[in-house]
Amino acid sequence: MCRDCAHTIHRTRNHYGWDRSIEPVARIAPGETVAFECIDASDGQITKASTVADLGRMDDGRVNPVNGPVYVEGAEPGDALKITIDGFDPSGFGWTANIPGFGLLADQFPDPALHLWSYDREIRQPAAFGAVGKVPLKPFAGTIGCSPAAPGPHSVIPPRRVGGNLDVRDLSAGTVLYLPVEVDGALLSVGDTHAAQGDGEVCGTAIESPMDVALTIDLVKDARLAMPRFTTAGPVTRHLDAKGYEVTTGIGPDLMEGARAAVSGMIDLLSAETGMDPVDAYMLASVCGDLRISEIVDAPNWVVSFHFPRVVLG
Amino acid sequence: MCRDCAHTIHRTRNHYGWDRSIEPVARIAPGETVAFECIDASDGQITKASTVADLGRMDDGRVNPVNGPVYVEGAEPGDALKITIDGFDPSGFGWTANIPGFGLLADQFPDPALHLWSYDREIRQPAAFGAVGKVPLKPFAGTIGCSPAAPGPHSVIPPRRVGGNLDVRDLSAGTVLYLPVEVDGALLSVGDTHAAQGDGEVCGTAIESPMDVALTIDLVKDARLAMPRFTTAGPVTRHLDAKGYEVTTGIGPDLMEGARAAVSGMIDLLSAETGMDPVDAYMLASVCGDLRISEIVDAPNWVVSFHFPRVVLG
Repeated sequence: MCRDCAHTIHRTRNHYGWDRSIEPVARIAPGETVAFECIDASDGQITKASTVADLGRMDDGRVNPVNGPVYVEGAEPGDALKITIDGFDPSGFGWTANIPGFGLLADQFPDPALHLWSYDREIRQPAAFGAVGKVPLKPFAGTIGCSPAAPGPHSVIPPRRVGGNLDVRDLSAGTVLYLPVEVDGALLSVGDTHAAQGDGEVCGTAIESPMDVALTIDLVKDARLAMPRFTTAGPVTRHLDAKGYEVTTGIGPDLMEGARAAVSGMIDLLSAETGMDPVDAYMLASVCGDLRISEIVDAPNWVVSFHFPRVVLG
Repeated sequence: MCRDCAHTIHRTRNHYGWDRSIEPVARIAPGETVAFECIDASDGQITKASTVADLGRMDDGRVNPVNGPVYVEGAEPGDALKITIDGFDPSGFGWTANIPGFGLLADQFPDPALHLWSYDREIRQPAAFGAVGKVPLKPFAGTIGCSPAAPGPHSVIPPRRVGGNLDVRDLSAGTVLYLPVEVDGALLSVGDTHAAQGDGEVCGTAIESPMDVALTIDLVKDARLAMPRFTTAGPVTRHLDAKGYEVTTGIGPDLMEGARAAVSGMIDLLSAETGMDPVDAYMLASVCGDLRISEIVDAPNWVVSFHFPRVVLG
């Protein structure tokens, strides 16, 4: 997929969690293009043959492996990596799960659930979710980050100012991402590839899917960037918005509770309108629905909205 | 503008704050269409001749007047109003202000600022913001709500489950809004019309602009709706997204702090790239930039993104 790649980070070259002491698997010059053969967030523990029972047997120590780290010559603390997201080669297989204890509504959905996806590798067709849903695809890497400066191991789950498990669905082909560098060489790793996800990733998983990723990695000296930022090449929801949106809201003094109310409202609505099981509505919402902050200034109550694209319902 | 209107709520028929004891100014049958001649959120205190000094002289007791209330025959607590937003007749004049003590970054912007807009009433052309910005317009009513059940006066500023000062920029022409009813007759009022606003309304004001609004108001009996919800007729950002977005992020355990970091980051970026004064960047961001929750499940850190549409910069 990557004619211009000077390096390949093969699928075996991955690690669990962040640690500045992990030995780089490649050293590159700024401006070079690198292919990452990313495994899915289960490290291959969920397969086409998996059932919901396999979720309970997963080894948590193997969650969310990332390919790397890649040492970028000349990168120093205070610089930024400028990462052009060249493209993705999706595998055609994916999964979405409700994992007990994880997700925005973990208290309301205590039981595990698993949906397996088979999708068009060319991503020209939406992916079917039973008889009800057709989800337009837009692949991206959920986890892309540099090593934190603080020594010792760090969980891969929370994102940080150096990036990591950002789960920003707009980090798709054509986007240029800037990440703060905190250690010499930056130590960039990539993984957790998703075939589609909505803003929020509300159930805790997307369409988790192994795929290859091509990135051109450049360096901005002395960028003094506080947080990651990015530039998209074009519209971010064009693949979803042709038929408009069903929108639920949560209103109150706490954004988290507002988000929970908005998503709960959408699950109720989707279940009532389609007959879908609530946990299926929750998972479907996670892969295509968007959490937006409509209003954050009319004290003491804020409005959080959850936008579900009607095109998914056909 | 409203051929099908059976009632007009004239500009003098407005009130300040919510109170179920306010006498209705019209009684309508479900399904009727009503024109609301809305004043702006300053109640006409900001005019084409205003300067920033006028902000300090504003009478706070006159903030955010709403036209109404309209009594809907047959509406009872537990029902919902189904409000089809038929259209807007914008005035062509608007204002955006940084009002001290109000807005997401009130601590960083203590001084008042005022921008006056003159825009195409047909909203075919974007509105100019100095030499730098061209803001595509999409009018809506910032405040649309039923009377709360709790007796006595209630501030108009916070939105509630019955609606009110929702400031949801997708409540534009073609959207169908459902609002919970808490009192007999619903007692619907409308105001705070905006020519454009981004998700969040981050500086606390939008393009505040007087305009007429046409709504068809229907009733859904026994709807048992927890929070407002709505259905959009089509895409919600198509007017903004042709040239993609500049996006800044805020990452951490608190969504409010994440939102503040993302917006601060955008103000820094816009100021650096255009030479714009930071308070101008803040106001421009408020009328066209979107706060999104990219990730709300990777505990303990969430990602809030602020999307600024590049088309605004030409």
